[in-house]
Amino acid sequence: MALPSTKPAVVALGGGHGLSASLRALRHVSDRLTAVVTVADDGGSSGRLREELGVLPPGDLRMALAALTDDSDWGRTWSAVLQHRFATAGPLDQHAVGNLLITALWELLGDTVTGLDWVGRLLGARGRVLPMAAVPLIVEADVREDDGSLRTVVGQVNVATASGHVERLRLRPQDPPACEEAVAAVREADWVVLGPGSWFSSVLVHLLVPRLSQALHETRARRCVTLNLAPDAETSGLTAVDHLEALHRHAPDLRVDVVLADPSAVEDVVETERAAAALGAELVMRQVALGDGTARHDALRLGAAYRDVFEGVLGDVGAA
Amino acid sequence: MALPSTKPAVVALGGGHGLSASLRALRHVSDRLTAVVTVADDGGSSGRLREELGVLPPGDLRMALAALTDDSDWGRTWSAVLQHRFATAGPLDQHAVGNLLITALWELLGDTVTGLDWVGRLLGARGRVLPMAAVPLIVEADVREDDGSLRTVVGQVNVATASGHVERLRLRPQDPPACEEAVAAVREADWVVLGPGSWFSSVLVHLLVPRLSQALHETRARRCVTLNLAPDAETSGLTAVDHLEALHRHAPDLRVDVVLADPSAVEDVVETERAAAALGAELVMRQVALGDGTARHDALRLGAAYRDVFEGVLGDVGAA
Repeated sequence: MALPSTKPAVVALGGGHGLSASLRALRHVSDRLTAVVTVADDGGSSGRLREELGVLPPGDLRMALAALTDDSDWGRTWSAVLQHRFATAGPLDQHAVGNLLITALWELLGDTVTGLDWVGRLLGARGRVLPMAAVPLIVEADVREDDGSLRTVVGQVNVATASGHVERLRLRPQDPPACEEAVAAVREADWVVLGPGSWFSSVLVHLLVPRLSQALHETRARRCVTLNLAPDAETSGLTAVDHLEALHRHAPDLRVDVVLADPSAVEDVVETERAAAALGAELVMRQVALGDGTARHDALRLGAAYRDVFEGVLGDVGAA
Repeated sequence: MALPSTKPAVVALGGGHGLSASLRALRHVSDRLTAVVTVADDGGSSGRLREELGVLPPGDLRMALAALTDDSDWGRTWSAVLQHRFATAGPLDQHAVGNLLITALWELLGDTVTGLDWVGRLLGARGRVLPMAAVPLIVEADVREDDGSLRTVVGQVNVATASGHVERLRLRPQDPPACEEAVAAVREADWVVLGPGSWFSSVLVHLLVPRLSQALHETRARRCVTLNLAPDAETSGLTAVDHLEALHRHAPDLRVDVVLADPSAVEDVVETERAAAALGAELVMRQVALGDGTARHDALRLGAAYRDVFEGVLGDVGAA
């Protein structure tokens, strides 16, 4: 007999480097951790595999698995192999080996989730990685240009790099089948974490998959929204308040318990607290940056912040 | 404390399907098994990787590793993944996933043998797989046409499919660096096994790598030559005697202890015994075919035949 876990079951939703940062933090404070990953990528190695083989874009799934890798010689080596990219003057250039391996497992086993679970076993992953939908998605955005005109941008790469501000995000197909295991994980979680990450194309996009969105609305889990450390191409010129308002615009009925932010990313504390409150959330500020001049999260600091959030320690932790 | 192994240390040299057949048999009768694999392939997925990335052709190495896979859910699954080939209308078509994985390990770890050992660990391989040389090789042959003319054929694919009869095989470079671990394995073995396999381009080619050939000549190990079940494109029209004479022509000083052959592949027993004796060998005949009409070896029958050979049970095993 063993003592039962006192750590929460957590589902982290996102994509790309933002989700990786979240998972590298959450693995310290959850022992039932599930990543739910965007499958709308259409760029790079993933975009080419999607086109050549008709599969889900594997890149964000691979990165999430790598972030959960067991910290052992075995795990580190296979994770490095999966993250390795060929550099050639030929057709393999920039293909990530893990993308090819995941694709092969899907073709061989005929099931997306089973294939990802096998990669998880290979890496000794400290959690499970699932796609947000069962089919490849195309993300599409109405973008307001600086001159006031509105245009439609199609594809994740185009949305992520578009000038102007994203007003409204849509998916093609509009009503994609969700990943059942992802829906179940959200419903059974103690906490769900949205963000950090490319705000529209990796974070908010999860709220557009109907059954996943429904689960996010109905779950008994508490909800944490983690803001980015700095704007990226997709959110250039947007404040923390703008980020929260964009979330509210895409999911008006979604209640949030905590908005977690680094102080350096909050321009106006009072306004940000107000925008958080409009979602039902308390603003929790913690230093979570790596502090090397880049806009990258530190896994241990962010992990400590998540622990505070999950344990209800929401006040200032600055020295008295 | 455990009882010491009574099974012999065996090195099997070859390439392609022939070596795989040998390994699937030998794993039953050796617990210190090493495969030494040709690296002259220039066709298919291997040929393209060799050209695009400048690496050793990985295909025959991958097949040897697959043949040694642990018989478990884990081993079977990863072996199937490594053997899986993409089928697309694009540039990934027919690439074997294991070839890509082996290539990535080589690039990442910077060492051929270490990379192969990692794949062996992944598969739980019942033995070690090594390349016959440390650099990619080009095989070249003088081929005698039916009209008596002699021409030079370059490249393994061309040699394997050339019309006419191979008289003399050469390597480019002529004096390639051997794989030190392969040389050591041959020197320390109890038995070395040459063949079955494409007789010139996968079997005899091992005798053209100078330090490997020297080790094969000098080792205290006993030597078994295993003949093919049927001629292939490379040996069409050649008898068992012709095969042994071709071996003798390429390595006149090599002494052999046993020539193992299926009765169906021996046209003239007396002449084949004489050709074997010219190498110093006894001809051992055993039914080792799968018996499904194809020219494939049965792993258990061939394993039993190897056990007989290793234990010195060389006479007829037909019912009294």
